[in-house]
Amino acid sequence: MTIKVEESNQTRSWACPEIVVAGLGQKLLFASREHKSAGTAVDIGGVKVGLLEVVVMAGPCSVESAGQILRIAQEVKQAGATILRGGAFKPRTSPYDFQGLGRVGLEYLRAASSETGLRVVTEVVDPRDVELVCEYADCLQIGSRNMQNYSLLREVGRSSRPVLLKRGMSASYREFLLAAEYIMAEGNDQVALCERGIISLSKELRFTLDLNAVPYLKAMTHLPVIVDPSHGTGSAPLVAAMSRAAIACGADGLILETHYSPEDSISDAAQTISTGEFARLMKVLAAVADAVGRKISLTLSP
Amino acid sequence: MTIKVEESNQTRSWACPEIVVAGLGQKLLFASREHKSAGTAVDIGGVKVGLLEVVVMAGPCSVESAGQILRIAQEVKQAGATILRGGAFKPRTSPYDFQGLGRVGLEYLRAASSETGLRVVTEVVDPRDVELVCEYADCLQIGSRNMQNYSLLREVGRSSRPVLLKRGMSASYREFLLAAEYIMAEGNDQVALCERGIISLSKELRFTLDLNAVPYLKAMTHLPVIVDPSHGTGSAPLVAAMSRAAIACGADGLILETHYSPEDSISDAAQTISTGEFARLMKVLAAVADAVGRKISLTLSP
Amino acid sequence: MTIKVEESNQTRSWACPEIVVAGLGQKLLFASREHKSAGTAVDIGGVKVGLLEVVVMAGPCSVESAGQILRIAQEVKQAGATILRGGAFKPRTSPYDFQGLGRVGLEYLRAASSETGLRVVTEVVDPRDVELVCEYADCLQIGSRNMQNYSLLREVGRSSRPVLLKRGMSASYREFLLAAEYIMAEGNDQVALCERGIISLSKELRFTLDLNAVPYLKAMTHLPVIVDPSHGTGSAPLVAAMSRAAIACGADGLILETHYSPEDSISDAAQTISTGEFARLMKVLAAVADAVGRKISLTLSP
Amino acid sequence: MTIKVEESNQTRSWACPEIVVAGLGQKLLFASREHKSAGTAVDIGGVKVGLLEVVVMAGPCSVESAGQILRIAQEVKQAGATILRGGAFKPRTSPYDFQGLGRVGLEYLRAASSETGLRVVTEVVDPRDVELVCEYADCLQIGSRNMQNYSLLREVGRSSRPVLLKRGMSASYREFLLAAEYIMAEGNDQVALCERGIISLSKELRFTLDLNAVPYLKAMTHLPVIVDPSHGTGSAPLVAAMSRAAIACGADGLILETHYSPEDSISDAAQTISTGEFARLMKVLAAVADAVGRKISLTLSP
Repeated sequence: MTIKVEESNQTRSWACPEIVVAGLGQKLLFASREHKSAGTAVDIGGVKVGLLEVVVMAGPCSVESAGQILRIAQEVKQAGATILRGGAFKPRTSPYDFQGLGRVGLEYLRAASSETGLRVVTEVVDPRDVELVCEYADCLQIGSRNMQNYSLLREVGRSSRPVLLKRGMSASYREFLLAAEYIMAEGNDQVALCERGIISLSKELRFTLDLNAVPYLKAMTHLPVIVDPSHGTGSAPLVAAMSRAAIACGADGLILETHYSPEDSISDAAQTISTGEFARLMKVLAAVADAVGRKISLTLSP
Repeated sequence: MTIKVEESNQTRSWACPEIVVAGLGQKLLFASREHKSAGTAVDIGGVKVGLLEVVVMAGPCSVESAGQILRIAQEVKQAGATILRGGAFKPRTSPYDFQGLGRVGLEYLRAASSETGLRVVTEVVDPRDVELVCEYADCLQIGSRNMQNYSLLREVGRSSRPVLLKRGMSASYREFLLAAEYIMAEGNDQVALCERGIISLSKELRFTLDLNAVPYLKAMTHLPVIVDPSHGTGSAPLVAAMSRAAIACGADGLILETHYSPEDSISDAAQTISTGEFARLMKVLAAVADAVGRKISLTLSP
Repeated sequence: MTIKVEESNQTRSWACPEIVVAGLGQKLLFASREHKSAGTAVDIGGVKVGLLEVVVMAGPCSVESAGQILRIAQEVKQAGATILRGGAFKPRTSPYDFQGLGRVGLEYLRAASSETGLRVVTEVVDPRDVELVCEYADCLQIGSRNMQNYSLLREVGRSSRPVLLKRGMSASYREFLLAAEYIMAEGNDQVALCERGIISLSKELRFTLDLNAVPYLKAMTHLPVIVDPSHGTGSAPLVAAMSRAAIACGADGLILETHYSPEDSISDAAQTISTGEFARLMKVLAAVADAVGRKISLTLSP
Repeated sequence: MTIKVEESNQTRSWACPEIVVAGLGQKLLFASREHKSAGTAVDIGGVKVGLLEVVVMAGPCSVESAGQILRIAQEVKQAGATILRGGAFKPRTSPYDFQGLGRVGLEYLRAASSETGLRVVTEVVDPRDVELVCEYADCLQIGSRNMQNYSLLREVGRSSRPVLLKRGMSASYREFLLAAEYIMAEGNDQVALCERGIISLSKELRFTLDLNAVPYLKAMTHLPVIVDPSHGTGSAPLVAAMSRAAIACGADGLILETHYSPEDSISDAAQTISTGEFARLMKVLAAVADAVGRKISLTLSP
């Protein structure tokens, strides 16, 4: 397969050995640039991801209460976010950790959305919950641990909602694209890919945000690519710098863990930035987007 | 937490920093050696895993036909296997690869079991299929890609069958033990852990079988530890050597991809050994087991 | 140790567990921000690295001939580079690969420098060659494979030249900083750190450029941080995007493999960009630098 | 390249894609099985490594005093070791850690050797020290951090002593074999390879001992393969189990950090076993060796 990368109106092609290696063999049908050369815009309740405008999603790790999610929604909207994130079903490493509010959390998310106009993205972890989550969310998130949960991928592939697919913590680009292919093979072509950090040798950070994925995936697929610097680094102090870098290398959007009081978050406190920091960051991101010929999407149509 | 390792009648204790690190925090309740110091014997249809006898599971990657699975069952039983493996539901990286025969595959497995007396272990990939697979299998396998599929772990935790839990391809020991804890927290204490190779820097092999896991896990938990050198290396020519090593370092069992004609396997041909090689290997394994004070379980009670 | 990160005039502190973990124990003396809070400007023949201006180093992988290095020097200078890179001593994985021109290569570099005014950075691989390389180079490069070659680190620590220290391919940030400490402990405080990609799970790229290193290291040390997107990705088509990202996240400089005819390079052809691409890239980089409050250094004092 | 593995009198061949991949290209001349199908016996002062007898090397991490090294030499010889290990030149991650006794350490090693008859293996870290270390040692060790220090490899390749080459912490098998090729290309064909653990995802252990390397390398090269379970795991409680496994999968020797009082070691205390444990282990190893058709070398000719 020959890959074309567009940079500053120049096109350069390169051979991609991995995807055609004999013995691995699998081909991409729907997800590849060969299948569809123009970029796909994923429509999340009217907010388009994959066009000139860089889309910013923000919100807490977990939905904790009606008041918490509403206040965060108001503050991130004020700063320019257009999509609200927040977990109602939480996949946690230990069975004894907070597992999310479930259906009640979904209701709180929907209420915050109605109040602010922000669209909602939230995770689904069980194929039996897909229908339920579709009632409340504008976009279904598949988390990192479920990137190769094929029953779940097929189920969201049969749903009517766009999907934010997070890269597995140790998945190759090829495996990531084949996970998208599982969803698309069921008829759902509204898939946004999300780089969220990989396990690596770097022992000092919880994960290593792999920004190389952005230009690589943009060359291989027509699907939009989002970056999650919060999970990607596990460290709030690195989020601003890595958000700037993500936009500079071509990301179509960001998803950022944000809370008015990060240290009070039930989960992921160490990687959550404050809504105040988020507002300051948005101004710098607008300048970086401008430098690379993009814009930050700041306004919502009703 | 202080860990005790028994070696040749000597006991040595060591501190295990990771599991008690503040911030990670999660504790093991049911899976830890502190909870239960004596080893647990997992009962797979009467075959006990975790006692003096090392248990050998063998069979093809996928169930392909009634004749294929029966012939393999007869040949591996003849060589000393007591448990038959074979996939009816196959999690595959690409949606366009063979996904298994499903319920029909389960029926073929059960028929081969009835004919030979071998017990059956087979994978379940969807929480909605757990009840179905329990009807046909003596032991439920959770595959590597589903080690953190918590909906599935909880569902098998509520079932009446023992579980063979495979380590995720990039899971730490702690994450592996916490996945077992998910199953046990639902009331099912019949869990056997299976080391099956991790993703590593070694580019030449598909996976790196991590035998360090065997003595480490045996020190941390009372659950039995099985080794899968077939997936663990991805290379049939390494299977014999790594099987010997697994028993030498304390594994309670092996699970080996075996076929009368490996090159004709629909899946995993490169890592499948022939039933002839399997029979020769079993003789060497008996000698190695003897050298470390174990025995190979060779006979089945009816 | 508490780390302070400055972002948009805001200062945030965070705990860095790794560097103070008992048992690992080693402390940084000279390289830490605690030792010296103000950033160090490394002086490469009058070109300062670590100030407001982002410094760009460019040139071929290997010096191949007097004409090749001079032509490249002229073209990259024209586009705005201030430092010329090029290998005379090449550490190669195979003993049968081109090992560099040695002393003659150094002479060609010096001649190109005299002609153009560009400063010269080149690698030294043997402690017995340090004196020789100092005669020809403005800055000594320690390559990735030698990051823990302590005899060599000590020798360049005793020299009178600044050092560009590349991160080992699997080195943690702590090991990287301790390698700088080896040089500084000998009395040489002119050390620039260079992130050049790590070995990772990503099988599709030769290396994974780890931009997280930039804000992390800038928080931990006062030394400037350079990024090498050429080795860092191993893929010319990714170099432009990752160069933009490096500057966006705070790098003090870039080092780029550049050749008038990349496909004719004796070594590293796959990761070398053309001098034409380099010139186009420099214009975009100036805009990105501006967006984050930096400038690209484009002019040389004589 | 087609690789042949011998297992229980059966020969099986397999394709090894990596070594012949176009673009990587490097060929092995001297180190490959194709060049020389019979195994090479490396002669360390009369002790042959690579024959039927498995050779055991033991001793402290660092030589600390004349009395310490002599007492350890006597105790490990008593238990059946034939080669004494101990560091006089120590490559340490921090410049402020104990760097070894240097020449004095070499003298203490030689004295302990004269007293006991044990042969001596010790590390050389600087090409300028090779001649010195050759005066005192029967075998030169190249440490993990120097596996790609090509100046040093060439220098030991020109020496008259056999070389114990340790695998780099993140080196592929191919890079490891090419490092051996560097030594052999200078005329020294007496090279023993040593697997000593790789950096991996397993966060709980300092390194992951990769025993897959043993059968893989034995198939690729005629050189003997030694295993170092002390550095390979970083954990004394795992050393016995991994030593048994190493012999079971075909290792030609072991190198074990051993001290009469491990907790008093200046370096590597956590991975050092006591001379008492060593003696008990040797008895079990003899049984394992016997099970796989080998013997433990226990006696020294004068």
